Amino acid sequence: MQEQAAIRAVTSIDVARLAGVSQSAVSRAFSPDASISPRTKQKVLAAAASLGYRPNRIPAIMLSGRSYMVGVVIGGLENPFYATALERLATALRERGLQVLLMYVDDALTLDSALDQLLSYRIDAVVTSLAIGSKTVARALSQLQIPVVCFNSSLVGPWISTVNSNNHGAGVAAARLMVERCVARPVWLAGPGKNAASRARGEGFCQGLQEAGMCMTGLTRLRGDDTYDSGYDAITRLWKRGIRPNGIFSSNDMMACGAIDALRERMGLICPRDVIILGYDNIPQAGWRSYDLTSFDQHTDRMVTGAMELLDEALLAKDSPLPRTHVVDAQLIERGSTTLPD
Amino acid sequence: MQEQAAIRAVTSIDVARLAGVSQSAVSRAFSPDASISPRTKQKVLAAAASLGYRPNRIPAIMLSGRSYMVGVVIGGLENPFYATALERLATALRERGLQVLLMYVDDALTLDSALDQLLSYRIDAVVTSLAIGSKTVARALSQLQIPVVCFNSSLVGPWISTVNSNNHGAGVAAARLMVERCVARPVWLAGPGKNAASRARGEGFCQGLQEAGMCMTGLTRLRGDDTYDSGYDAITRLWKRGIRPNGIFSSNDMMACGAIDALRERMGLICPRDVIILGYDNIPQAGWRSYDLTSFDQHTDRMVTGAMELLDEALLAKDSPLPRTHVVDAQLIERGSTTLPD
Repeated sequence: MQEQAAIRAVTSIDVARLAGVSQSAVSRAFSPDASISPRTKQKVLAAAASLGYRPNRIPAIMLSGRSYMVGVVIGGLENPFYATALERLATALRERGLQVLLMYVDDALTLDSALDQLLSYRIDAVVTSLAIGSKTVARALSQLQIPVVCFNSSLVGPWISTVNSNNHGAGVAAARLMVERCVARPVWLAGPGKNAASRARGEGFCQGLQEAGMCMTGLTRLRGDDTYDSGYDAITRLWKRGIRPNGIFSSNDMMACGAIDALRERMGLICPRDVIILGYDNIPQAGWRSYDLTSFDQHTDRMVTGAMELLDEALLAKDSPLPRTHVVDAQLIERGSTTLPD
Repeated sequence: MQEQAAIRAVTSIDVARLAGVSQSAVSRAFSPDASISPRTKQKVLAAAASLGYRPNRIPAIMLSGRSYMVGVVIGGLENPFYATALERLATALRERGLQVLLMYVDDALTLDSALDQLLSYRIDAVVTSLAIGSKTVARALSQLQIPVVCFNSSLVGPWISTVNSNNHGAGVAAARLMVERCVARPVWLAGPGKNAASRARGEGFCQGLQEAGMCMTGLTRLRGDDTYDSGYDAITRLWKRGIRPNGIFSSNDMMACGAIDALRERMGLICPRDVIILGYDNIPQAGWRSYDLTSFDQHTDRMVTGAMELLDEALLAKDSPLPRTHVVDAQLIERGSTTLPD
């Protein structure tokens, strides 16, 4: 890599000379927070481009104590909800002049196993669409003393905020729709026990059914692990028990798609003719014609906007930022899976 | 952020004292390439953990001229193929002690629009599951003089290598399967014109049909943009032209799923009873029961291993590394969509 350094020796002085500006102006043109007129910045960028100049940000990092890098923890990308969230987060952080240092965890729910990585890098903040899974991890993250913003986390703490979908409210709305459609044998298909969002959706669903006067003994509870296969398997277990549901609320769309296929293949039940079904996340597959699934859209764009607001607030806070929870209403997207036949 | 610095002032000296080792040993324990005994490293890591020490890698970067950061360009994550590839790449780079600096482009095929970002950061290499879309971009990347490894790129150059699925060979195999199944009215559903992988799959498919003595005037060519909707729309156009296919090779699985739904909804054609269909990528949805789609698996794990080999070779090269192309055979995963009824 020695030759590279020699070939690349275009400095900010060369750029300043060509642009006819000061060296400090070159530096400011490449600093996200610096004050510089659009015209000067334009001149610097044009000169830099023609010389092939690449700013070396490292001295700036050492001087300011800020790396302009944000740790983004990802996992569970097989669920398109997380894939979309990552694209939106990367775009929003880039627009703020922040770089994304990516950390992958082999976990579709929590960032907990990224803790060691988070501890070992110099980053300004952590932003993730995953939740925090344990109090120990929440405590360790607070001790980092950098802003942490998660999605759908029930655990928060000093420095740690979360943007949550209105999971409980959506659960209540799902129950009301079941009652409207005269569902007598409802099923709640939950995600893993450690999925806080799923728990809140289930609690809302039960509350909504009770408010409508339904006896909770009539509710069948199933559990999956948020995957298509686990939705298929849960319905297969129901079939073996001889239970024929006529309404299912699934904690996510992936399981709902598995459920629709198992209802047809195992029980010969066609959706919505024999059974209505609602999912959560509004993933692209919910709109695919074989599923045509009614679903709650978490509005990833609004969640990401909320996350950026929490991040800005925490970065600007003078003292340890207090935990904050920003709630985004989920929108019911009605499709064929809940449309009653004429 | 001033208070933070004061609170965090645990240095490598404190760690060295607690671990009973030299300060240099602490530094080596946190450097990916450094020589250190497992026992000493263990002592250092334990001491660092108990003190809450976070190594500051920046001085090491300035000294070595290496950032240990690799730029990973992502786009098109709505296609699970790219989502899986990203997870595997992030894992493989992490295992090499390299950090992932993520760049998102609003493009499902090429990294071209990430060029400005790539030029502005100090990174050791670029690894991406996207391809290079234009010669101009390939030239600019070569001038960076850092290793670039892509997937399924037809453009390479000095410093630029690619790992390709055996797209042409798979196209030939798809044609042979069509001929075996006595398909008289084959359809080739191509991806966008700039998708080099799609072009190679289509060329292989035509060659295979010709080798079997099929007249090319009997082949119907459709084009989509690699999305579900575009597959659905392509079949809708076919239906309007009054063409009823009995075999379809789709350049990817997303379009194939759209095609299956349109065949049923528009033409009343059931797969595989009336028409067989093959896709490419073997995304999870290919295994979902509503689609049950035969598909070519690109073996993302082998492609990522190949990418890491090309990366290592380029990083170790004394001169400008020459372009290399590593080919991974795709595996035909046969499912119901090509199973002839008894």
